[in-house]
Amino acid sequence: MSQFLKVKTAKEVLTIIGGLAPLSVESVPLHAAGGRVLASALHAPEAVPHFDRAVMDGYAVRARDTFGASEALPALLETAGEIHMGEIPTRPLEPGMAMAIPTGGMLPPGADAVVMVEYTQSLDERTIEVTRPVAPGDHVLRKGEDIEEGQSLFTAGSRLRSQDIGVLAALGVNQVTAFRKPRVAVFSTGDEVLPVEAQPLPPGKVRDINSYTLSSHLKQNGFKVSSFPVVPDRLDALVAASRDSLEGHDVVILSGGSSVGARDYTLRILSSFPDAELLVHGIAVRPGKPAILGRIGEKLFWGLPGQPMSALMICHTFVMPSLENLEGVGMSSTWQPKRAVALAVLSRPLPSVQGRTDLFPVVLSSHENSSLATPLFGKSAMISTLSRADGYVIIPEHVEGLDAGVGVEVHLFAGH
Amino acid sequence: MSQFLKVKTAKEVLTIIGGLAPLSVESVPLHAAGGRVLASALHAPEAVPHFDRAVMDGYAVRARDTFGASEALPALLETAGEIHMGEIPTRPLEPGMAMAIPTGGMLPPGADAVVMVEYTQSLDERTIEVTRPVAPGDHVLRKGEDIEEGQSLFTAGSRLRSQDIGVLAALGVNQVTAFRKPRVAVFSTGDEVLPVEAQPLPPGKVRDINSYTLSSHLKQNGFKVSSFPVVPDRLDALVAASRDSLEGHDVVILSGGSSVGARDYTLRILSSFPDAELLVHGIAVRPGKPAILGRIGEKLFWGLPGQPMSALMICHTFVMPSLENLEGVGMSSTWQPKRAVALAVLSRPLPSVQGRTDLFPVVLSSHENSSLATPLFGKSAMISTLSRADGYVIIPEHVEGLDAGVGVEVHLFAGH
Repeated sequence: MSQFLKVKTAKEVLTIIGGLAPLSVESVPLHAAGGRVLASALHAPEAVPHFDRAVMDGYAVRARDTFGASEALPALLETAGEIHMGEIPTRPLEPGMAMAIPTGGMLPPGADAVVMVEYTQSLDERTIEVTRPVAPGDHVLRKGEDIEEGQSLFTAGSRLRSQDIGVLAALGVNQVTAFRKPRVAVFSTGDEVLPVEAQPLPPGKVRDINSYTLSSHLKQNGFKVSSFPVVPDRLDALVAASRDSLEGHDVVILSGGSSVGARDYTLRILSSFPDAELLVHGIAVRPGKPAILGRIGEKLFWGLPGQPMSALMICHTFVMPSLENLEGVGMSSTWQPKRAVALAVLSRPLPSVQGRTDLFPVVLSSHENSSLATPLFGKSAMISTLSRADGYVIIPEHVEGLDAGVGVEVHLFAGH
Repeated sequence: MSQFLKVKTAKEVLTIIGGLAPLSVESVPLHAAGGRVLASALHAPEAVPHFDRAVMDGYAVRARDTFGASEALPALLETAGEIHMGEIPTRPLEPGMAMAIPTGGMLPPGADAVVMVEYTQSLDERTIEVTRPVAPGDHVLRKGEDIEEGQSLFTAGSRLRSQDIGVLAALGVNQVTAFRKPRVAVFSTGDEVLPVEAQPLPPGKVRDINSYTLSSHLKQNGFKVSSFPVVPDRLDALVAASRDSLEGHDVVILSGGSSVGARDYTLRILSSFPDAELLVHGIAVRPGKPAILGRIGEKLFWGLPGQPMSALMICHTFVMPSLENLEGVGMSSTWQPKRAVALAVLSRPLPSVQGRTDLFPVVLSSHENSSLATPLFGKSAMISTLSRADGYVIIPEHVEGLDAGVGVEVHLFAGH
């Protein structure tokens, strides 16, 4: 394993992540396919609608029979029965005739438009007046007008939204081929870190925060996450825990203690696996510079900083995109924003240094007609900062800081 | 059951929804508490940190011993060993002494600041030079400085985000009392509606879309959803299906066929339950005016329009808030936006009528430095419109339409 790599820029790291190959594919029933990423393009297997359909309640007519109709001089049409919802009309519509039809009903052969019921009046049991003309196609969805048979629906790499599930349901596609979702293992390391159950907490110790915030964050984004117990700063224990957590998972996320040696341990863990490869050894980002990304065989191995806010922001900015690439979103040619952002006005200037990406936690509040993003300064180790933050602002490496009053994109930690 | 109610405004409906009482409470382990709503306020059971803690690598010192130190005239301190991570210092720091300390290490009695390692230099094994003065408290997080014991953390009705889970982990709170999440049953109705498996689809029929879009949408928002089979437009079948789906669920969502009689059926279903109460009989909103909300005993019963886009928008605008109130978010005194919105510029004017709330599906695209929201007009029954929409714009009842170029909030259907 090559041990020494230069610190990479955020962009270089995202490029490496963007090159990760997706996991294997599997067949997913439609009812479970919301949020899944398609492994192959989908085309419409049939037309929608697959028959000429009324989109209003009224009468199916031949449009030409209504030409010139008005309140003063209505067209008179003979009624020829009623079309029932979900049924095939039993006979064609003859000229001068009209058939009552519900929204969604199938037009009879010969009919080419629907007159809305509001513009008709029954004169007697056999005759209606039409007081407005219709053009051919009015209030009708023609076969294939909505979706044509064979039409391209989704490219490979598309993540299926609720609406898309509806389109596939309409077309009778009740199975899709999707990339497997990565299974993620998370654990915290550090001699000073105790499990959450530790009561009372001895002086000098802290409780495991990161395996909770990271797994909660990843779970709420739809990933399957297993949390492993805290591991002390001993190479043998770290290697054993890494080996255990690699079992049955595609990605292992370790978050280091805050001690100076944590970063070296992560490298030494990687070195202990013969098929390991170091991909990223430090990112030019603050906070989170010591982050490490490696590959062990087909699996990803992330080493995150121990400080909870840093770990959460690095998870959001780099780990999540790596999981999304394993899910196959990199296949998509049509790029879409994947995460929730809020647009806000910056409440005060933010300093930044050229050549480094800065991540600033902010709290959102409403201000006049817009949202105000207030940076959370103060000691970054504070847990209360973590709770107050709604998200964070990214200042890219080529930008030298932002002025108060500018519009910023706030990357939100969570919907709910 | 009172059968006749006036159509209500969107605001009136949201007020009724806001008055719904939350479900029962339950104890939830912390690892499963992300996204859950607290049933009671939480206070910090202990201080964070619970000892004076270094927030930088360096030397624990008495600040006064560094006063006046500079590059030219460094302060000389005698080293008195090293504090190890997670350990209690065995002896106090005497005047004129310094102890090496890692980030997160516990300050020894007597020390009141940390000198960063960058501003020190070892002269020999027993002596360091300090080239910058520190003030008391520098690079130290004092006991309780982050969170004080007994401090208010969250009010009842707060939805726990990943960050909040981290705060509770830090404090050793490994169980929370949360409101139960509503269990939701969904089914579609209509003689013309066939299950998704129907192959080939006979002319005049359509497949069940709504139970797929609605349950995908609700599941991705963290609710437990059961889908029931399509029910034909027959009162006995509808009542039986409603009775079955009420069993084991807190909320039943029926989406009507598009036929004219569907709305009456929903009322008649409600009437067939002796403990039913009609809460909303039509909403002054387009689309979705025929929406019905009733209560059967302690349970909610929603009747939504059959048209898929209308059903999804009404689910988003009214059903979701009703579920959130059952979850207890109405308890919170601090209001927070609950759903993802994007700010965008409207691409063309949108017409609206006073006294009615309008919901317009839009597609988002990027335009110069902002997002552009383009309304999706055309035949609202189109399934392709459903798939193209990223979300929708709400025009409130007192607004008479929006001009092109104005900023709008787009309510997004889904993150992923």
